[in-house]
Amino acid sequence: MTVRRILDLLGIDLPVIQAPMAGVQGSALAIAVSEAGGLGSLPCAMLGPKALRDELSRIQEETGNPYNVNFFCHTLPEPNPAAELRWRKVLAPYYAEYGIDVSAIPSGPGRRPFDAEMADLLAEFRPPVVSFHFGLPAPDLIAKVREWGAVVMSSATTVAEARWLEAHGADIVIAQGLEAGGHRGMFLSEDLSTQVGTFALVPQIVEAVKVPVVAAGGIADAAGVAAAFALGASAVQVGTAYMLCPEATTSTLHRQALSSDAAEHTALTNVFTGRPARGIVNRLMSELGPICQAAPAFPLAAAAVAPLRAAAEQAGSGEFTPLWSGQNARACRPMPAAELTFLLARGVPDRS
Amino acid sequence: MTVRRILDLLGIDLPVIQAPMAGVQGSALAIAVSEAGGLGSLPCAMLGPKALRDELSRIQEETGNPYNVNFFCHTLPEPNPAAELRWRKVLAPYYAEYGIDVSAIPSGPGRRPFDAEMADLLAEFRPPVVSFHFGLPAPDLIAKVREWGAVVMSSATTVAEARWLEAHGADIVIAQGLEAGGHRGMFLSEDLSTQVGTFALVPQIVEAVKVPVVAAGGIADAAGVAAAFALGASAVQVGTAYMLCPEATTSTLHRQALSSDAAEHTALTNVFTGRPARGIVNRLMSELGPICQAAPAFPLAAAAVAPLRAAAEQAGSGEFTPLWSGQNARACRPMPAAELTFLLARGVPDRS
Repeated sequence: MTVRRILDLLGIDLPVIQAPMAGVQGSALAIAVSEAGGLGSLPCAMLGPKALRDELSRIQEETGNPYNVNFFCHTLPEPNPAAELRWRKVLAPYYAEYGIDVSAIPSGPGRRPFDAEMADLLAEFRPPVVSFHFGLPAPDLIAKVREWGAVVMSSATTVAEARWLEAHGADIVIAQGLEAGGHRGMFLSEDLSTQVGTFALVPQIVEAVKVPVVAAGGIADAAGVAAAFALGASAVQVGTAYMLCPEATTSTLHRQALSSDAAEHTALTNVFTGRPARGIVNRLMSELGPICQAAPAFPLAAAAVAPLRAAAEQAGSGEFTPLWSGQNARACRPMPAAELTFLLARGVPDRS
Repeated sequence: MTVRRILDLLGIDLPVIQAPMAGVQGSALAIAVSEAGGLGSLPCAMLGPKALRDELSRIQEETGNPYNVNFFCHTLPEPNPAAELRWRKVLAPYYAEYGIDVSAIPSGPGRRPFDAEMADLLAEFRPPVVSFHFGLPAPDLIAKVREWGAVVMSSATTVAEARWLEAHGADIVIAQGLEAGGHRGMFLSEDLSTQVGTFALVPQIVEAVKVPVVAAGGIADAAGVAAAFALGASAVQVGTAYMLCPEATTSTLHRQALSSDAAEHTALTNVFTGRPARGIVNRLMSELGPICQAAPAFPLAAAAVAPLRAAAEQAGSGEFTPLWSGQNARACRPMPAAELTFLLARGVPDRS
């Protein structure tokens, strides 16, 4: 019943959403999933206007099926030179190790929040689904995407956030359990102890809101999908497993980490961007955190880490790379995105 | 298949284990669950020899069905007067607030680990199942409980711990997901970032070991049981929901907290015993932690908190009480233990 409702709402055949994952995928993965009957997602948080336009054009050329575009909607913090200086001091030993000239590192905002300019660009393409992370943008921006009839989704990490999203106009709530890889969508609290495991979060959010609920976090195979539906989800969102697909742009280094024993230990860290996100524990995370008080506010922490990451990767090391991963990478197997989508859909109960 | 195997191994009818919960239940709850066809558990960590003997006698009088006795198997830390003094200094403002005479507070070990004396006492009763928390006791102690054919269970919070337990003689591994209430069973690492949500932990442990796996953490109703079985569990262990049964000795204060909105926010804290355990966030937890570096090693932190807890409870406050709870208390409803056991068993798949 609820599955039928979400399939109709999104206009898709299979209740499987590919999680938007900035940095490890572009339009190719989204197209493959949408073509297979699931909902492909394009992460837009790190795309400039030209890149965004190119990616959207590509999607519309390659598939007539619905797809999702995802944006961050954080508030940009004021630049804080003192905090930036403190952060660079913390990173100084690593700069020295890799011979990086600190004065040459630009400080920059990095990820840009959703704004009117992006909304106007989107209006040309009228994407059928628009999802947000870190809450929802201002009402006038939501009104803009509604003009072309887009379905609006956002992530909740607590029952309170799910209620907030429903009250502020989300058509679908994604229950993002603690197991999920990448950035925590949390936006009503910065207290990590409020975060709830998928198994406990999904049924509580299903109980708390009337809109359809998508389960996310730790789902990597058909058995996981079946479990999510047993808990009351109307669909699933899967990230980590899609990172191993050939259509993803995941680096070799990152793929190797996901397929290794290292993936058994992930943690929530703020050292890469300033906001907690789950990745495979590496040197930067374990030596500075995983949570480091000196990391500047999101997304300002990223700029100072970028040259370190580049230098380390050049040397074949992922110790300064955000190796985003959920807590269940061991269940993920490399395969084409369509095949993975069909495999996941086998976990959807009959007659629902 | 795997369900049949665990039912035969434990000699029970329903693959539902009532989690042992020291401080909120005794033999009455265990008897009710075992009589209903599940596996009732007696928490023994806080029982002296006489109380343990009384409880075991009562169980054997009241039910002929299998039951489980649970022990902690930590290593007792050396008394550390400096650490104790530091801890009492941290607590001093609260002592002052409640007019507690610090010099009158005894320091004591509190929870005692499983030892030869307890094993000898058990031998008189030959309990069919013996479970441990914090790993397993020394091989000679395991050999003792095996003499009367007891089945041995213990909790794993990571894949590595599950492998360790299997290699060291556990017949059944309980996969304790991050959602679970009470003490984390973790014993190979003290790093909380190693802890995994139920949804991701259960399938990984099922994949890693050959012994049957019991899912624990966030399971509170038939839907949760169905989800746990979908993830590959052979049985479930449920704690928080049983705390609301009339057969439990849960205090009114604790019951009220579990049934209130406060139960939406639990956290892992070490302020009550020195080891991380999940409880509803209250004043002691939020003001000192939830993780406090000054808390002495387990179980030594408990003694200094005891008089505060008593004074606060006397005044009708649970702000200094360990209000143990999993992350899914909202799904729990008060009902007799037999009814809850039957309700949970409705989630067990047919033909398994």
